[in-house]
Amino acid sequence: RHNINITAIAQGASERNISFVIDAAQQARALNIIHQAFFEIRKRLSLVVIGVGNIGSTLLGQLRAQRSHLLARGFDVTVVGLANSKKFVLNPRGIDLARWRQRLAASRRRMIPQVLAREISKLELTDAAIVDCTAAESVVAAYPDFVRANLHIITPNKRANVLPRSEYAALMELLQSRQKYFLDEANVGAGLPIMSTIRDLIASGDVIKRIEGIFSGTLSYLFNNFDGSVPFSALVKDAWRRGLTEPDPRDDLSGQDVARKLLILARQAGAQLDIADVDVETLVPPKLAGGPFSERFFGALARFDDKMAARLKRARSHDAVLRYVGSLAGGRARARIQEFRWDHPIAMTKGSDNIIAFNTKRYSQTPLVIQGPGAGPDVTAMGVFSDILKLLHYLPH
Amino acid sequence: RHNINITAIAQGASERNISFVIDAAQQARALNIIHQAFFEIRKRLSLVVIGVGNIGSTLLGQLRAQRSHLLARGFDVTVVGLANSKKFVLNPRGIDLARWRQRLAASRRRMIPQVLAREISKLELTDAAIVDCTAAESVVAAYPDFVRANLHIITPNKRANVLPRSEYAALMELLQSRQKYFLDEANVGAGLPIMSTIRDLIASGDVIKRIEGIFSGTLSYLFNNFDGSVPFSALVKDAWRRGLTEPDPRDDLSGQDVARKLLILARQAGAQLDIADVDVETLVPPKLAGGPFSERFFGALARFDDKMAARLKRARSHDAVLRYVGSLAGGRARARIQEFRWDHPIAMTKGSDNIIAFNTKRYSQTPLVIQGPGAGPDVTAMGVFSDILKLLHYLPH
Repeated sequence: RHNINITAIAQGASERNISFVIDAAQQARALNIIHQAFFEIRKRLSLVVIGVGNIGSTLLGQLRAQRSHLLARGFDVTVVGLANSKKFVLNPRGIDLARWRQRLAASRRRMIPQVLAREISKLELTDAAIVDCTAAESVVAAYPDFVRANLHIITPNKRANVLPRSEYAALMELLQSRQKYFLDEANVGAGLPIMSTIRDLIASGDVIKRIEGIFSGTLSYLFNNFDGSVPFSALVKDAWRRGLTEPDPRDDLSGQDVARKLLILARQAGAQLDIADVDVETLVPPKLAGGPFSERFFGALARFDDKMAARLKRARSHDAVLRYVGSLAGGRARARIQEFRWDHPIAMTKGSDNIIAFNTKRYSQTPLVIQGPGAGPDVTAMGVFSDILKLLHYLPH
Repeated sequence: RHNINITAIAQGASERNISFVIDAAQQARALNIIHQAFFEIRKRLSLVVIGVGNIGSTLLGQLRAQRSHLLARGFDVTVVGLANSKKFVLNPRGIDLARWRQRLAASRRRMIPQVLAREISKLELTDAAIVDCTAAESVVAAYPDFVRANLHIITPNKRANVLPRSEYAALMELLQSRQKYFLDEANVGAGLPIMSTIRDLIASGDVIKRIEGIFSGTLSYLFNNFDGSVPFSALVKDAWRRGLTEPDPRDDLSGQDVARKLLILARQAGAQLDIADVDVETLVPPKLAGGPFSERFFGALARFDDKMAARLKRARSHDAVLRYVGSLAGGRARARIQEFRWDHPIAMTKGSDNIIAFNTKRYSQTPLVIQGPGAGPDVTAMGVFSDILKLLHYLPH
């Protein structure tokens, strides 16, 4: 059944042991099979990975590299489907992760999320999940179809968690009624254990008093390097050239990404907010907010350099630095530039680190702080991988 | 069946809705019951809490306070047993958490862990766990009996994880063969997400390069306050008087607790070490290491104050402070006093904070850092509670 050649077999006289001879090359696999047959703790999980850009392709690499490690723990994870924005491919027996690019390229199936959901449901998989590694609204719009097709959802895509309140509630209700998991650790802070920590705090009865932190790797980088030696607009342009910002840097400077993460945390903490309720300071001057992006933006932004320089100078006169932080306290969510004294943990961030400090009833004297790189394909894929592990544990034997 | 009084009942003509009138006071409970009847996702978990000191009694309070919250999520957690070092009490229908002290006090059953295991197995519970909130070796010695009695294990007790290698491996194998979970988040850093983070890193294929941190709240406090204004021995005595050390402060100063935590992390990272392999610098002068503890210890310790003062002075000449840290790198585990420059995260700890920095293949530019109070009944019980939640998720529907 498992394609292992048994050369010889012998049973002990006491009927308490059975020996057999196999090919040395098949030894590891044979051991796995025996282990599973006796302990029966193997769990199968089928994944459909949507989005094969930076994060998706890194995740596929991690899944491939960890396959034997997962099998040894009794977890049989198979990628049965892949999609980019144009095509999808499905294979219930599993897609060879050494050749997934070719398989996807060879597909003639046009990617329409609702069609993909229907096709997956025809496969009658027992335990399956979509892993949405896009930032697309169109995929989120099809989440209800995926759930009805009997799929769990694992995603770093923040768009579901920031849906208008009624749509968000409807999705959560649908998930619950269908007993499907929605796993979103990488929504905030990539691989940093932020979502799981806030959930554990609340579930164990702690009360969130204040959450404060730096939630944008790009804004972290800009303010960590804004020391007055170079005008702010030049720093932005340099970061843009080096690929450290979004293609349109206004997507970072607007603070909207920070606002989304704050909304996600606020909803976890039980607040009934919508994105419009988050008070956001944009770093994009109003006149530059509209229209398509071009390099001329940086020249226009330079007209506001004096204002930024003055803010930095004022902070320094208070022994402080500037940081773009999100905060949540008293039911109010705010994203803005704030001053922090040099010895404050938020002033000590380096590179493009994220940091989050939880002040709670239990963590009141000194906060619980989590800090580290909160963006990048490697660490984001790790957050997704960690959710795959959670789902494996959650599934019945 | 659920003791809810239905005053009136009506069915819609289309047979698609049923209405009934109930007492307003029973509304929340009725909603829960209906919800569970329809969605059938209720999971039952029976717990036997061993050790009802600071951590155990705080946990019982958290479980009592969170009962309705857990029920609303479909989790029915019942404490069916309690034990201190002298007595135990069992009640398969659940012990009233408002009166657990009286129930335990009224018991006549002598606490012998192996007997408790046998008695629990007679109850034929479906999903059950012991929660070992002791620091006792005698309870750990009975873990195999509990596992054979069909129980999962949840514990902040470090002793199982630092057993000699062969005993440790035998216990882990027994757990696996019986498909029982061993959940130990609160072994290191209390409620801080340290154990889950190191497991996620490794399972997702990251490679640990270096782990460094402060793992003792007491030693953190002592060095955070050692500024030269007061001799080291006087600081220790003051901390002891204020209950911030173990009753015998040599248990903190010996560094053995730090060594144990390092061993636990090292084993998670795959190193084949025993406690004797950890290189520990003790702060207890050899002559003072033996014999029973008395207040005269502090006088004898004072003879070493000059040496500590000289170390502090040398650190300061390097713009550094002293910290007692544990580190793990290149297969080597060390616990000792080290110098850290004032702007290093480890130099920035306050109060009795724990801090841990993971330098890995993935987190190589800047480390993943978790910081906060790593001791105390509230936050330790939270770590245990978080493991109870994990187990609830792991259990089949």
